[in-house]
Amino acid sequence: MAHIKVPENVPGIRSLVMFRPETGKYLYSLAQTLLRDDSPLSPAERELIAAYVSHRNNCMFCRNSHAAAARHLYDEKATIVDDVFLDMQEAPVSDKLKALLHIAGKVQINGKAVTPEDIEAARLLGADDRSIHDTVLIAAAFCMFNRYVDGLASFTPTNADEYVEMGRRMAEKGYVLPGEQERSKR
Amino acid sequence: MAHIKVPENVPGIRSLVMFRPETGKYLYSLAQTLLRDDSPLSPAERELIAAYVSHRNNCMFCRNSHAAAARHLYDEKATIVDDVFLDMQEAPVSDKLKALLHIAGKVQINGKAVTPEDIEAARLLGADDRSIHDTVLIAAAFCMFNRYVDGLASFTPTNADEYVEMGRRMAEKGYVLPGEQERSKR
Repeated sequence: MAHIKVPENVPGIRSLVMFRPETGKYLYSLAQTLLRDDSPLSPAERELIAAYVSHRNNCMFCRNSHAAAARHLYDEKATIVDDVFLDMQEAPVSDKLKALLHIAGKVQINGKAVTPEDIEAARLLGADDRSIHDTVLIAAAFCMFNRYVDGLASFTPTNADEYVEMGRRMAEKGYVLPGEQERSKR
Repeated sequence: MAHIKVPENVPGIRSLVMFRPETGKYLYSLAQTLLRDDSPLSPAERELIAAYVSHRNNCMFCRNSHAAAARHLYDEKATIVDDVFLDMQEAPVSDKLKALLHIAGKVQINGKAVTPEDIEAARLLGADDRSIHDTVLIAAAFCMFNRYVDGLASFTPTNADEYVEMGRRMAEKGYVLPGEQERSKR
């Protein structure tokens, strides 16, 4: 049960946003802008960074839902997501993306853990300022989302199918506030 | 020097928001809503929670600026802020605020570190759902802001006077986007 009185059976951050929509609307807008709007990184790559950071923070709700969104977006390359969870450095992704995931992993520890050498390595592999910026802000933002979701012990479904459906919705519709969404079949 | 090309001599998160205002506007709106709008916690208490988490994350820019804002808001009780940095449990703040700062410290480690006992202890001292929610979200949000600022190595002033002025502005004007602010004397 969640630490505070939120709508029952509403998973993860959704229940918290319903408790406090005044802050929730900015959290959803931030996620939508960061993960879907214009960026040199594809939505699949950005969802992968979000899932990787959530995996490292051991936040099962964010890990499973963003992994599902990334799998949906990677489509026939969906297994990349689990390969990254298993061993990022050996996963079949580009060296540039590995360098960015490495930076995201440093941000997950602490901002100061990112070194000029980490940045230089990513640049040499083709990462520009916007890719580096977006990677750092996605990683930082999920250090917030993960702590919000787990710090209030919000409801975390354990049924894998539920995440597949959630990931599909996140991939196709993006981050829409509970109130603004058309009636869902769930 | 910052890891990416941002306006020079603009301190901390301001320079990053100028680099990417599309995400920056939601970060500022989140800070304003969370730290200034309606809450059972006073703006001084909320700035103190933000400074305490930034102190624990060793983010000097956020620590010093939010500590300065908290000192300005606490006014003649300004020394509370440094007492909390030195030894939170012995600081001259209410037991309820100590219980909330304790929860914020747990969130700084990881969301899952918050236990039902931590929540129960805060409740017994008078903390309601909104106080607990706001504490957790402020702590989580500063785990993002701290990582954003340090992960991109944004400019961190070392002159103490600069933070006094910054804190006064944050306390009096709140969180206003660089472009929306009237010309400042700085």
